[in-house]
Amino acid sequence: MASLADTRTEDPVALVERLARKARAAQRALAAMPGDAKAAALMHAAAALREDAEIILAANARDIAAGEASGLAPAMLDRLRLDEARLEAMAAGVEAVAQLPDTVGQVIDTVERPNGLILSRIRVPIGTIGIIYESRPNVTADAAALCVRAGNAALLRGGSEAVHSNRAIHAALVRGLAAGGIPPEAVQLVPTQDRAAVGAMLKAAGLIDMIVPRGGKGLVARVQADARVPVLAHLDGICHTYVHEAADPAMAREVVLNAKLRRTGICGALETLLVDCRYPFTGELVGALIDAGCEVRGDARIQALDPRVLPASDNDWDTEYLAAVASAAMVDGLEEAMAHIARHSSAHTDAIVTSDQTVAERFLAEVDSAIVMHNASSQFADGSEFGLGAEIGIATGRLHARGPVALEGLTTYKWQVRGTGQARP
Amino acid sequence: MASLADTRTEDPVALVERLARKARAAQRALAAMPGDAKAAALMHAAAALREDAEIILAANARDIAAGEASGLAPAMLDRLRLDEARLEAMAAGVEAVAQLPDTVGQVIDTVERPNGLILSRIRVPIGTIGIIYESRPNVTADAAALCVRAGNAALLRGGSEAVHSNRAIHAALVRGLAAGGIPPEAVQLVPTQDRAAVGAMLKAAGLIDMIVPRGGKGLVARVQADARVPVLAHLDGICHTYVHEAADPAMAREVVLNAKLRRTGICGALETLLVDCRYPFTGELVGALIDAGCEVRGDARIQALDPRVLPASDNDWDTEYLAAVASAAMVDGLEEAMAHIARHSSAHTDAIVTSDQTVAERFLAEVDSAIVMHNASSQFADGSEFGLGAEIGIATGRLHARGPVALEGLTTYKWQVRGTGQARP
Repeated sequence: MASLADTRTEDPVALVERLARKARAAQRALAAMPGDAKAAALMHAAAALREDAEIILAANARDIAAGEASGLAPAMLDRLRLDEARLEAMAAGVEAVAQLPDTVGQVIDTVERPNGLILSRIRVPIGTIGIIYESRPNVTADAAALCVRAGNAALLRGGSEAVHSNRAIHAALVRGLAAGGIPPEAVQLVPTQDRAAVGAMLKAAGLIDMIVPRGGKGLVARVQADARVPVLAHLDGICHTYVHEAADPAMAREVVLNAKLRRTGICGALETLLVDCRYPFTGELVGALIDAGCEVRGDARIQALDPRVLPASDNDWDTEYLAAVASAAMVDGLEEAMAHIARHSSAHTDAIVTSDQTVAERFLAEVDSAIVMHNASSQFADGSEFGLGAEIGIATGRLHARGPVALEGLTTYKWQVRGTGQARP
Repeated sequence: MASLADTRTEDPVALVERLARKARAAQRALAAMPGDAKAAALMHAAAALREDAEIILAANARDIAAGEASGLAPAMLDRLRLDEARLEAMAAGVEAVAQLPDTVGQVIDTVERPNGLILSRIRVPIGTIGIIYESRPNVTADAAALCVRAGNAALLRGGSEAVHSNRAIHAALVRGLAAGGIPPEAVQLVPTQDRAAVGAMLKAAGLIDMIVPRGGKGLVARVQADARVPVLAHLDGICHTYVHEAADPAMAREVVLNAKLRRTGICGALETLLVDCRYPFTGELVGALIDAGCEVRGDARIQALDPRVLPASDNDWDTEYLAAVASAAMVDGLEEAMAHIARHSSAHTDAIVTSDQTVAERFLAEVDSAIVMHNASSQFADGSEFGLGAEIGIATGRLHARGPVALEGLTTYKWQVRGTGQARP
C-alpha cells in the first residue's frame, strides 16, 4: 500500500481508482469464502478492537482535543467521543453481525423449464460498497462488519474530525480480519481528507457498486445530488401518524406520544400528526403532547382546541423537526389523510391508529411509503427492531431495497442455469 | 392534455415534468386496481390494436415512406416496418402479458417479532417508468403492457422515425385501457421529437423512478452516461463459453455452434470461445465454426490449429461482434478461464461445457455474471426462455434486478407492520 506521504500528493480521482481496484481484487477472494470463515474473521476483528482499546481511545482523545480547539459543537463532540463502554459496544456490534445468518449463497428460487434447464437465483455480494460518513467513529466498525459479512469490500471515508479514531479502529479491524484470512484490501480507509476524494467516490461508476451516506441531511443531499453510483439512503424522515375516528383513545395517546417523544432526533420520529375530524379526543391528545413538553403547530381546527397550539405555516407540513415539535392537522377522513401523506410524506414511515380493520388495511395497501404501520409507534422503524440484526441504513428510494437495509440489501443475485447440452431451437 | 401545437413550444423540461406529474397521479389509481382488472384492461388494449389495424398500418406506411426518402438503412427500415403478422404478434404479446400472474401484492415474507408486531414485505409497483427506444414500434405496446401489468405508469419516448406508428399504436392502447378503467395518463407518449426531452427524462429524479433504454449501444451508452434516474439496462453482451477438458465433444460442438450462430445479433450470442489446452478436440471445434460460416480470430495456439483462423488483436477480447465472428483463446485450465472472463466479460452471460460436476459448480459459483450456465447455449439468456413470459430488458447492473427483467423487476416492496398498540421501549 502506498504510504500516507504518497497519497497526500496523489490526484484524488487516481487515488480512489487505485483503492477501488484493490478492493475489487480482494472482494473476489472474499466472495468465495464460506460463511463460517467470514464470521470467524469478524470475531477476530472484534477481538482486535478490544486488544487495541488503549490505542483507539488515545487516538480518539487526539480527535476530541482537536475538535475542542476548533470549536466543534457539543453535540458533534458527543458523537465523536469514545469511551470504554462505547468501544465495547462497537466490538459487541461486530460480533453480533458475525452471528447473523449468511445471506450469500441463499437460493431465492429454482424452476425447471420444459426443456430440462434448471434455473436458480442465488444471492451474491454486491461488490464494493463506498461508505461516506461524518463524525461517528463507530460507523467504521459497523459498516465494515456488515459489508464483509455479506461478502463485499468496503471503501470507508469518514469525517476529518474523526481521522485519528478511524485510523486506529481500521488498523485493528484489518489486523483481525487478516488473522481470519480476509485480505486487508477488502476494507480500506480512504487515506486523505481531501474533499475531492468524496467526489471521486461518487463518480466511480464501474469501480464502486453502491454508496451509502451515513450522516446529516447536508451530507446525504450532496451525495444524492452528485453521485453517478447508485445510492442507498434517505434524506428526510417526515413521518405521519393518522389517528382515525375509530382509534382507541388510550392506544392513540400512547402510540402518538411514543412516536413523537421517545427520541425526537431519529428518522422514524413522528413529525406530523393527522387527526380525523370525527375523532372525539383530539383535544386531550394534543394537550397530552403539549403537557409532555412538545410544541404543537396546528391548523385552524387544531388551534381551536387548545390555546397553547401555535399556528402552522405552509412549511411546517414539509419539515422534519428532529426535536420536540410536531405539526398537527385535522382531516375529513381516510382519503384526506392519505392525500396529505402522499403530498408531504418523505416515504419513510407512516402510521394509522384505528380499531377499524377495513380502514387499516386500506391505509396499509394504499399509502406508498417504505414502511406503513397500523397501531404501532413509528419509532419501531429500525433494522434491529425489525429483526434484521443491524442496519447499514434506511432507504426511501424505490429500487433494490426499501426501509431498513441489512445483509439481504447488501447482496444481489445471479441466475445459475444447469443444462445437459441444450441448444436453443 | 395540451395539444401538439402547445407542446411544440413548451420547454422540454417543463413538458416532461408536466407529463410525469400526470403519470404519477394516474399511477396511484392503477396501483390500487386488482390484478384481474388490470388484466382485463390489457385485453381491451389488445382488442383495440386489432380494431385499429388499418390506421396503424397506414401510419406505419407514412413512417416507412419518410424513412425511405431520408435514406434509412435497410436493417432500420426492417425494424420499423409493420405488417398484419407483426401487428397480430403485438396484440398477442399484450394478451400474453395480461395473462401473466400478478406480482403486485405478493407477500415476500412475514415475521412476527417477540413484541407481537407482525412485519410483512409486499410487492408494490415501482411508480413511473420511462422507456426510451429507437425504431421498433412494437416496443410501444410491449413496454406499456408490462409496465401496466405491474401497476406502473409509463412515459414512452420512441424514435422520431417511428413517430406516426407510435402515435397510432398509443392511441389504440390508451383507448383500450380506458375501456378497462385505466386512466389514459397512465401511459403517455412524449409528444415531441425534441432530443432535449430525452435529456429531461434522464434527469427527472423524483418524477420518473426508473429508465429503461431499448435500442442500440449508442442509445444505452448515452442513457447510462447522462441519467440521474436509476437505469435498468445492459450495454454489451460480451458472452463467453469455456469448453473444459472434460467436455463431451458432441455437446461442446452443438452448444458452441448454437451459442454463436443460431442468431448472431442478440445480446446472449457467444462472442469469445475459451478452450482448455487439454481439450483434445479444439481443432475440430474451431473448424466446425469456420465451416459453418463463422470468422474465428484466435490467439497463437488457436491459430496453430487451423490455417483459416485469423489473428486476434487485443481489442478482440473486448468486442461484441453481433455477427458471424468469434474470438477464441486457449487457456490453461479453469482458473485462467475464469480470470479471462472476470477481465473481459460484460457480466451478461457466461457458460461452461464440462462433464466434471465439481468444475461446473465452481464456475457457477465464482463467475460473477448476471447469468452463468453449465452445458447450455448462452442464447437461452432471454426472459421468455426463462419462463418470465416477457421481458422489459436484460440488466447487467448489480442492484435491484439482474439478467432478464420482467414483472417482478418492475415492482419493489414495502414493509407493512401490524400492531396492537405497541410503543417502543
